[in-house]
Amino acid sequence: FIPDHIFPFFQTTSSALKGAIQLGITHTIGSLSQKPERDVLLQDFEVVESIFFPCEGSNLTPAHHYGDFRFKTYAPMAFRYFREMFGIRPDDYMYSLCNESLIELSNSGASGSLFYVSRDDEYIIKTVQHKEAEFLQKLLPGYFMNLNQNKRTLLPKFYGLYCVQSAGKNIRIAVMNNLLPSAVRMHLKYDLKGSTYKRRASAKEREKAVPTYKDLDFIQDMPEGLSLDADKYNALCKTLQRDCLLLQSFKIMDYSLLVGIHNVDQACQEQANEEAGAGAKGQVQKALYSTAIEAIQAEVGHMGSMETEDRTGGIPARNSKGERLLVYIGIIDILQSYRLAKKLEHSWKALVHDGDTVSVHRPGFYAERFQKFMCNTVFRKNALKTSPSKKRRAGAGPVKRAAGSGPSLMTQASSSSTAQSPLLQHQASSDTREDSEADKSEDERAQKL
Amino acid sequence: FIPDHIFPFFQTTSSALKGAIQLGITHTIGSLSQKPERDVLLQDFEVVESIFFPCEGSNLTPAHHYGDFRFKTYAPMAFRYFREMFGIRPDDYMYSLCNESLIELSNSGASGSLFYVSRDDEYIIKTVQHKEAEFLQKLLPGYFMNLNQNKRTLLPKFYGLYCVQSAGKNIRIAVMNNLLPSAVRMHLKYDLKGSTYKRRASAKEREKAVPTYKDLDFIQDMPEGLSLDADKYNALCKTLQRDCLLLQSFKIMDYSLLVGIHNVDQACQEQANEEAGAGAKGQVQKALYSTAIEAIQAEVGHMGSMETEDRTGGIPARNSKGERLLVYIGIIDILQSYRLAKKLEHSWKALVHDGDTVSVHRPGFYAERFQKFMCNTVFRKNALKTSPSKKRRAGAGPVKRAAGSGPSLMTQASSSSTAQSPLLQHQASSDTREDSEADKSEDERAQKL
Repeated sequence: FIPDHIFPFFQTTSSALKGAIQLGITHTIGSLSQKPERDVLLQDFEVVESIFFPCEGSNLTPAHHYGDFRFKTYAPMAFRYFREMFGIRPDDYMYSLCNESLIELSNSGASGSLFYVSRDDEYIIKTVQHKEAEFLQKLLPGYFMNLNQNKRTLLPKFYGLYCVQSAGKNIRIAVMNNLLPSAVRMHLKYDLKGSTYKRRASAKEREKAVPTYKDLDFIQDMPEGLSLDADKYNALCKTLQRDCLLLQSFKIMDYSLLVGIHNVDQACQEQANEEAGAGAKGQVQKALYSTAIEAIQAEVGHMGSMETEDRTGGIPARNSKGERLLVYIGIIDILQSYRLAKKLEHSWKALVHDGDTVSVHRPGFYAERFQKFMCNTVFRKNALKTSPSKKRRAGAGPVKRAAGSGPSLMTQASSSSTAQSPLLQHQASSDTREDSEADKSEDERAQKL
Repeated sequence: FIPDHIFPFFQTTSSALKGAIQLGITHTIGSLSQKPERDVLLQDFEVVESIFFPCEGSNLTPAHHYGDFRFKTYAPMAFRYFREMFGIRPDDYMYSLCNESLIELSNSGASGSLFYVSRDDEYIIKTVQHKEAEFLQKLLPGYFMNLNQNKRTLLPKFYGLYCVQSAGKNIRIAVMNNLLPSAVRMHLKYDLKGSTYKRRASAKEREKAVPTYKDLDFIQDMPEGLSLDADKYNALCKTLQRDCLLLQSFKIMDYSLLVGIHNVDQACQEQANEEAGAGAKGQVQKALYSTAIEAIQAEVGHMGSMETEDRTGGIPARNSKGERLLVYIGIIDILQSYRLAKKLEHSWKALVHDGDTVSVHRPGFYAERFQKFMCNTVFRKNALKTSPSKKRRAGAGPVKRAAGSGPSLMTQASSSSTAQSPLLQHQASSDTREDSEADKSEDERAQKL
């Protein structure tokens, strides 16, 4: 399946696009490895390297049957640095993406993007629009700063940004970490924003084997949220707070938390029924800090939890029935702020409709509501220390939840959330730009409505 | 002594300026400590905080007798991060700068800047011009990137940038690391650029107790240069290479290497003559990576060399007589590129005068010549392993140099210097700006002349 706006450029199948991407990445990584190691400089973020791949081949490029194309690599030195920071060796990167065929994912989403995943499950390739690629380039210095201060982040890991240019048309692609390992069966999937306006999965989405549900679905399905051990809950909220601050500083909104839930207990039963099923014992991811648990807490290389024997980097959690879960999360869709202008009309309709629950607001408001929703509603701090249960590994049955722990969790969670607010407020007040006042008044207006 | 352009603002003495600086820094560090820890964001580099200090005091500021003034702090969050990176605690910073009186240095140099040193020898306060302060602010994102990739650097450590505004006039000051610990007697001092044009200390400078000599003086006084152990020589050249690349990327020129030389053997004799002299056993510097040896090589906290029992962070070296030296170095005057326009006329005169030895050239040429001079002429790799001499600690006499090691060192040094060139060339070629071609042709022209 190729969306209409991409179809004309690679007319045969998406295999031509995949082939061009693989030729291009092979070349760019090869040529990069010949450049000497040196520090990344500020101007490296703006470099674009370009190479032409004629069908008949050249002294630099092999012959191929994808039609003449040009391959552009954005900020090659900067992305090399990012990959190094994430422990990705050039050979591994090239091998994963180029030596085995890419798998096209069917869930292209509302954006009309194409998604490919590398066969080893490490990398996602996503087509991005012109404005998104441009925005990512602008983001790179801030991204660099964040990575250096804060390797634990739920933000997308950007490993590369490229453009395939064919017949005068451009297809831009970003290579990112894969949030949901395909070896792990996701029993539930959510795309959460902290908004309730039109945040319910469509009838069409619900027909899928594993639909991506939304905020209203979550509130309905899991009113008690996902229960995490205190240390994991605190680490998660801290990480979200830092990530949201960065997103807010770039005036980014409309991002989501993608949540994949693997139910360990359910998987055990299924496995018993289905014989050898796809349990949570999939392949270990190789990049550093790229799994959910590493993104918030665990030491790299020490992420196997005793309780679940999980080596896929899921965050151990429980549902209200006490069933053991592995939760895979990441912040997605951070490059789409430019759509704001388009959505303004929708925003006003929404404002009239349900006041402060509108999805499109000013960045500070969006960030705060997002954090509140995640740390008060979606994730809850488990008052019980679950470490004793680690010894009960054989017993796969559900663990009873202590009565009354629900309400007390609520209180804890909301108090920790108010503790976060001053930080965002400080950011707003030290913000010297003229629109900070405008922000505030609009936020206040929205809250009063 | 106060230069003319500063005199009118603080009419009494420089003590009013010192007092205002101390009040201002005390306030800004105090108010910063009340702000929560958070990651530094890109826009933090542009923030300027300002507070008014009326003579009669306010609810935020104490009364004082320096005349009404306003104190501005540039990029407070960014500099807090830099200080943290250098292991400087807020209390220590404030105490060193504000709780004891600042010492004014008499060598204000050609720039007309005032210099103060903190009583504990840690910090230098230097007055900088408007354009220099502006340039430093522009430099901060690149400085941040450098610091994160490269803690070992001979570039100035910038700990703070402030402005004292009084009677409508501004005095901008930068707080930096002190390169030459005052507890260590410097027997020789050089300001080196790699140029020979007019690079000789003036007659007036020579009258001083310890004059700051220049390139031509060095070539004359120390034709065999300063001999370093291979590991230290390599570390030094590597550090200079990285630093020069950064400077070049910002089109900075006209910087110098400040070299302070303490002659250990000479000091021993002096000490014998003078009884308790000021030897090389001064106070240990507290900031991380701030001494010369840390800037190129030694582990922080492990910089005491057996041979010299040096705890002041000097780099062990030898002169041609085999005398033991401690060398204190750092790159200075990196903020003055804006003067280029003014100097163009001078540059043309110089070009006519002695061709490729002109001090003012395009940044790439300047950086390469600077590195070549330091790594071929000033510093030489010692072919002899000097570790056996560590056991001879009692014998303070000069160690004989192996005959013939001079010329072979030259060859080694120049081959290692050509190995550095491709890196700079690569930088120039990946540089997408239009003037990179212009750079090259001018460099070539200069080299041909």
